[in-house]
Amino acid sequence: MVGNKEKAPKTYVTDLLTGILNRNVLKNVTHVENVKLADDGRSIVILDQSALPNRTEYLTLQTLPEFYDAIFTLKVRGAPCIGIFAGYAMSVLARQIAGELELSGAVSSEKWRSFINRLSELGGELNSSRPTAVNLSYAIKRMLAKAESLVAENQSSAESLLNELQREATAIHEEDIEMCRKIAEAGLTLIKDGDGILTHCNAGPLATSRYGTALGPILLGKERGLKFHVFADETRPLLQGARLTSYELSKAGVDVTLICDNMASIVMKSGKVQACFVGCDRVAANGDAANKIGTSGVAILAKHYGIPFYVLGPSSTIDMATATGADIVIEERDPDEIKNKFYAEPMALPEVKCYNPAFDVTDHELITAIVTEKGVIRPPYKEAFTRLFK
Amino acid sequence: MVGNKEKAPKTYVTDLLTGILNRNVLKNVTHVENVKLADDGRSIVILDQSALPNRTEYLTLQTLPEFYDAIFTLKVRGAPCIGIFAGYAMSVLARQIAGELELSGAVSSEKWRSFINRLSELGGELNSSRPTAVNLSYAIKRMLAKAESLVAENQSSAESLLNELQREATAIHEEDIEMCRKIAEAGLTLIKDGDGILTHCNAGPLATSRYGTALGPILLGKERGLKFHVFADETRPLLQGARLTSYELSKAGVDVTLICDNMASIVMKSGKVQACFVGCDRVAANGDAANKIGTSGVAILAKHYGIPFYVLGPSSTIDMATATGADIVIEERDPDEIKNKFYAEPMALPEVKCYNPAFDVTDHELITAIVTEKGVIRPPYKEAFTRLFK
Repeated sequence: MVGNKEKAPKTYVTDLLTGILNRNVLKNVTHVENVKLADDGRSIVILDQSALPNRTEYLTLQTLPEFYDAIFTLKVRGAPCIGIFAGYAMSVLARQIAGELELSGAVSSEKWRSFINRLSELGGELNSSRPTAVNLSYAIKRMLAKAESLVAENQSSAESLLNELQREATAIHEEDIEMCRKIAEAGLTLIKDGDGILTHCNAGPLATSRYGTALGPILLGKERGLKFHVFADETRPLLQGARLTSYELSKAGVDVTLICDNMASIVMKSGKVQACFVGCDRVAANGDAANKIGTSGVAILAKHYGIPFYVLGPSSTIDMATATGADIVIEERDPDEIKNKFYAEPMALPEVKCYNPAFDVTDHELITAIVTEKGVIRPPYKEAFTRLFK
Repeated sequence: MVGNKEKAPKTYVTDLLTGILNRNVLKNVTHVENVKLADDGRSIVILDQSALPNRTEYLTLQTLPEFYDAIFTLKVRGAPCIGIFAGYAMSVLARQIAGELELSGAVSSEKWRSFINRLSELGGELNSSRPTAVNLSYAIKRMLAKAESLVAENQSSAESLLNELQREATAIHEEDIEMCRKIAEAGLTLIKDGDGILTHCNAGPLATSRYGTALGPILLGKERGLKFHVFADETRPLLQGARLTSYELSKAGVDVTLICDNMASIVMKSGKVQACFVGCDRVAANGDAANKIGTSGVAILAKHYGIPFYVLGPSSTIDMATATGADIVIEERDPDEIKNKFYAEPMALPEVKCYNPAFDVTDHELITAIVTEKGVIRPPYKEAFTRLFK
């Protein structure tokens, strides 16, 4: 068994959370915490996103089946959030395997081999919970690579190796927070105190960490005492804007008004919107951006009303291997999401067809700027991206 | 008591319905019938629109409280449909009053005065079921005026007066069918076989009679063997597109695809839409058109993608006393419609604010043409309207 001789490292995240609770660090805003490693490094506490907005439930997860279920049933959702969760999950699983193999102190290379094999096996199972999630496989691979490199380095003890692995998981989390903070800083230069901002879907703390991407400038501004008025599209059919964005902004004390997607036009016309902030799932080499269905419509309205339209996301979202938005395949989902999901009874006849694309592509000509952790990128995007990645 | 000597007149509507049932008149389409007077003229059969789309229930209504309730609880909805219903209701009530007053054969002017007073009283009560519905008060006033004029003309018998009143109610219905048919004819000149048509909200037979306004060209075309592909916006928050438009087009055998409002952009971009058809609640003297929330957004998208955008409605919708759309007051409705209505549980926190405008105004510059029973009206609208109404 792994002893308690070396205490699990206190994380940056824990520090921040303590700061929030003490109201020392952040006086103006409560950030929703979605994923947190327990102090003993043996379990993960998550906010069950599938129960929002009606129930704010924190779950303590300890086993692979629990981790798998959390991802599979969307209790943990949002690509970066899944990656952060998977990093911690690998760290917790490593401690369990070490316990099973009775690793302690100095460990033979044969035993280390068993450890690595078992960790790789469990990582593979975890990855199958949502095989298309790039952040999931990225985090699992990174944790496995770290474990292999530590074993190869011939670490002094099992305990220190497990703590190093936990530090790696924490690093994934801290890097995401730092990246979101940088996106938020860059985005904040585009708006001023009192501005109205329209957002679509959910690209906030629940999907990422701390600041989120599209909501980052708003939350960072809030920390600094700035006031923004946010209009959140409810974002049919899955209602991420209603269920998640309005939830986290409301919890953070930000002035938020929920609207139906088809109300964006009248709100923009009223003069109450100075900028649109949206996230992105993939940005092509020419600046075309795929994001949640409806985003392209918001961009067209914004152009019509002369309102700047900004896309915010990590630079890793820019895919230079995708020439234009036309190369992005759009996932088509179950009609049931439109006709039945969330409703007390169906809203259309069983025989009525539905078209339910999950994403659409916003033409680069409609995008005023793309904001990443590397700063604000203006058109022409192709040239700007080439400079960015050279 | 009123005897059965003179049979209630068989209506044009009844003829049409029989034709449909025999599949003689209309081979290609089943029109949803929303309001029908019973053959004996003593009750009204309605399709309960509040139960759609899950239950197709026909209700037989006979009394003022039932008529009142049908309008108040939206079992009967759509401005023209309410007017048609109110005409029949006044006819049925006239027969009841005649029964109560034991009018038969020749009637004294004193008794006729009692009849008119009572009919006026009940008409006033019926009108209070939805005081803002112009078609409701129009139909009630018209039926009362007809009754008064018949009494003044000194009709030969109670029976013939009641039958004349019933003919007036039928005339209101037939005039609406005829007007919708003319709108449909005019609209049909704007599209061709195989076209894709996007529509918003519900401006079909359920809200009007037989053809509807915005859906008229599609249904008339269907009767003539033309095939259109309709994309119906679900139209949040009240989902008239899902619950009603997709219902009636599906029942009529028209190819219809239900989409969320925020999917209109990707559908238009795909090249599958050749025209947008929407209804209207009020058209200002400069051509600005108020219609269900979200209509202006559809118009902006249509302009962006180079798709013609048509507004269809009776010429009575054009209000020359309203200079521009800026003079139209937009009704703001209960946030509950966005957060709770139709859902199994709330979709946002109780403390989250909503903005819920019922209508928006589409700028006249976005409207390719306005289609009324008088034909297709092209810009400049102000001049065209002036010619139309001179």
